[in-house]
Amino acid sequence: MLKSPIDFWFDFSSPYAYIADEWIDALAARHGRTVRRHAILLGVTFQAAELRSPVSYPIKRDYALRDFARSARFERVPYVQPQPFPIATHLAARVFWWLHDGAAGPTAAAAWTRSALRAYFTRGVPLNDPAALKALAADSGLDAEAAEAAWNDPVWKDRLRAENDAAIAAGVFGAPFFKVDGEPFWGNDRKAQLAAWLERGAF
Amino acid sequence: MLKSPIDFWFDFSSPYAYIADEWIDALAARHGRTVRRHAILLGVTFQAAELRSPVSYPIKRDYALRDFARSARFERVPYVQPQPFPIATHLAARVFWWLHDGAAGPTAAAAWTRSALRAYFTRGVPLNDPAALKALAADSGLDAEAAEAAWNDPVWKDRLRAENDAAIAAGVFGAPFFKVDGEPFWGNDRKAQLAAWLERGAF
Repeated sequence: MLKSPIDFWFDFSSPYAYIADEWIDALAARHGRTVRRHAILLGVTFQAAELRSPVSYPIKRDYALRDFARSARFERVPYVQPQPFPIATHLAARVFWWLHDGAAGPTAAAAWTRSALRAYFTRGVPLNDPAALKALAADSGLDAEAAEAAWNDPVWKDRLRAENDAAIAAGVFGAPFFKVDGEPFWGNDRKAQLAAWLERGAF
Repeated sequence: MLKSPIDFWFDFSSPYAYIADEWIDALAARHGRTVRRHAILLGVTFQAAELRSPVSYPIKRDYALRDFARSARFERVPYVQPQPFPIATHLAARVFWWLHDGAAGPTAAAAWTRSALRAYFTRGVPLNDPAALKALAADSGLDAEAAEAAWNDPVWKDRLRAENDAAIAAGVFGAPFFKVDGEPFWGNDRKAQLAAWLERGAF
């Protein structure tokens, strides 16, 4: 029987989503699964859930910054805290959906995800800056003019808005957020539970 | 060289602290460490950090309840979601400090911690109810009259207040919260990182 894909919601400005993006495909493949990515805007889901970013709380901020870097080291993933952080990621997310729905498809959207997350979280490329994003698109093998046209196109603005709404309706309130056969897992730190669920089934 | 103890802050109403309380002593012992427990009131640290309990957010609540039980199963710890939840835990916390500072000492306080957490999270014993708490104290081998006198005594009210203040000053904003040689770890889900830190040292 064909196993259903693992749904994976992320925001291009989430350190934990970046770390998870580095391990989720290999984990899925070991269990005969594929990954279905959903680029969303965490700010929108935070607003819907009345939540805020951990770094917006002064007491939590120092710990969060320390934990981002430590969690990356724990997973042996390179990490350099970008500044500014967090940033607006709607442009990068619209590029994702443009690729996803186009001829290039989900595989190209996944490659863009990896390229943009690595650019921001290892080289500090400001994904919120149109010029930097355009250069990154070119470096990532995309048609940079077409990518820019896409992120300014109401079609992809609406597509992203619809994905945010769908995520909220699905109970997503943070990133990374996963669903495996309907079971929700929130956070890079649920990797072990997610792996056990794939291995043993419901526990 | 004698290794410093692991500091462990908890609230008697925290499911993740309950789960962590079941594994922390064995993990510490494997690495030649002891555990120094600190009973605190999470509500006070939440207030200081402008945070709220995860179950106070409607969208997060369903996930949180599911995750409490699943995280317990993952660690093979029995868990029955208590109702009402969360509850006020200042009485149980004052008993902790009364034992801790008395002739019985930290070992008795740790035994009370385990007894009270198991009572609430497996049998729903309402730790906020004086009659139920008194009965639990007796069942736990304590002098129930003396325990009741202690939780009404300004000395132990002040002791708990001072511990809350000290926790906030130490950067504690949630539970379970650990420190190993100054390195902070927040959450039952940091067990693997904490274990790696004890095993390898700083990574």
